[in-house]
Amino acid sequence: MAYSVPSLARLIEQFERLPGIGHKTAQRLAFYVLDLSEQEAKAFAGAILEAKEKIKYCSVCQNLTDGEKCSICSNAGRDKGTICVVEDSQDVIAFERTREYNGLYHVLHGLISPMDGVTPDQLKIKELLTRAADENVKEIIMATNPTVEGEATALYISRLLKPMGVKVSRLAYGIPVGGNLQYADEVTLMRALEGRNEI
Amino acid sequence: MAYSVPSLARLIEQFERLPGIGHKTAQRLAFYVLDLSEQEAKAFAGAILEAKEKIKYCSVCQNLTDGEKCSICSNAGRDKGTICVVEDSQDVIAFERTREYNGLYHVLHGLISPMDGVTPDQLKIKELLTRAADENVKEIIMATNPTVEGEATALYISRLLKPMGVKVSRLAYGIPVGGNLQYADEVTLMRALEGRNEI
Repeated sequence: MAYSVPSLARLIEQFERLPGIGHKTAQRLAFYVLDLSEQEAKAFAGAILEAKEKIKYCSVCQNLTDGEKCSICSNAGRDKGTICVVEDSQDVIAFERTREYNGLYHVLHGLISPMDGVTPDQLKIKELLTRAADENVKEIIMATNPTVEGEATALYISRLLKPMGVKVSRLAYGIPVGGNLQYADEVTLMRALEGRNEI
Repeated sequence: MAYSVPSLARLIEQFERLPGIGHKTAQRLAFYVLDLSEQEAKAFAGAILEAKEKIKYCSVCQNLTDGEKCSICSNAGRDKGTICVVEDSQDVIAFERTREYNGLYHVLHGLISPMDGVTPDQLKIKELLTRAADENVKEIIMATNPTVEGEATALYISRLLKPMGVKVSRLAYGIPVGGNLQYADEVTLMRALEGRNEI
């Protein structure tokens, strides 16, 4: 039998589809939901529907927003001359947590990956080129992940941007702070050596 | 800013309340939901509401069901003389997976735990006593977890059942199959010795 109750089986199935959630965890989460009060369950379901309904892409940077422009693009205090290009909105959150970066972002919503059938025209590259054409833009920082796809995407975009006369930079590679040299891989160590700074 | 979009923040908060889901995982799940199609998101929210609305306790064994009696209690092929007493419905699923047990269950929906303010009258013990009074019931197996609360609950219930003349048994303790003697704790090893069987 396992799950003789169809509505329970359906709920477990829904949780199981979430990334990183296996069958046992899905079961635990479903049972947790059953223990919620009527009102709490409604709030949970409502949050899913509301987020899905209200959240769309910012017309400028393609970040998530529930308005026309996101809070970063509409913030007058941010430096409009710098654009940090990232893979997705979660990367924006990561950068914002540093509280150091004061420029704008551009969210690509993916990386070029011929293996997965993702071609440049499926990403928000056209929108980036339009923004880069603005003469106020001084520098574009390629902040994609240091993976094969991330590197390829950064290279592809920088080749499109260079002829436009805008400065294009890439995040520094090196030893992560708090890391251990013994456990660093050879490529990272090599890049850390290459990128050494005078102290 | 972190989450400048209120509906996104609310969705992350809802996921964060689930057991075993930390902030980063909640964020990942919320972004996954945003990537779902309109229809998929509706199915997810619908599964939560439907499960919450339809699922209630079986009138006999207190297991989860969407009808009046659960599929186990209404199955004529099951042995009505044996009742396995478990903490919650997930334990029923665990036993059913063995495909060995053919009796009925009784779900307590908790364990006696004075520390957490759970007293016997908050559990489905009264319902168990009513069932035990039926003369067809031959044996009641206490299958609560081998924890302090589980042991206390099993002892408490068995003391109530014994005067009724019904046989009360407890799950065997011992080395888990595939386990390693070196890593078994002293109490388990002692119990395994005590419960040794002739081969």
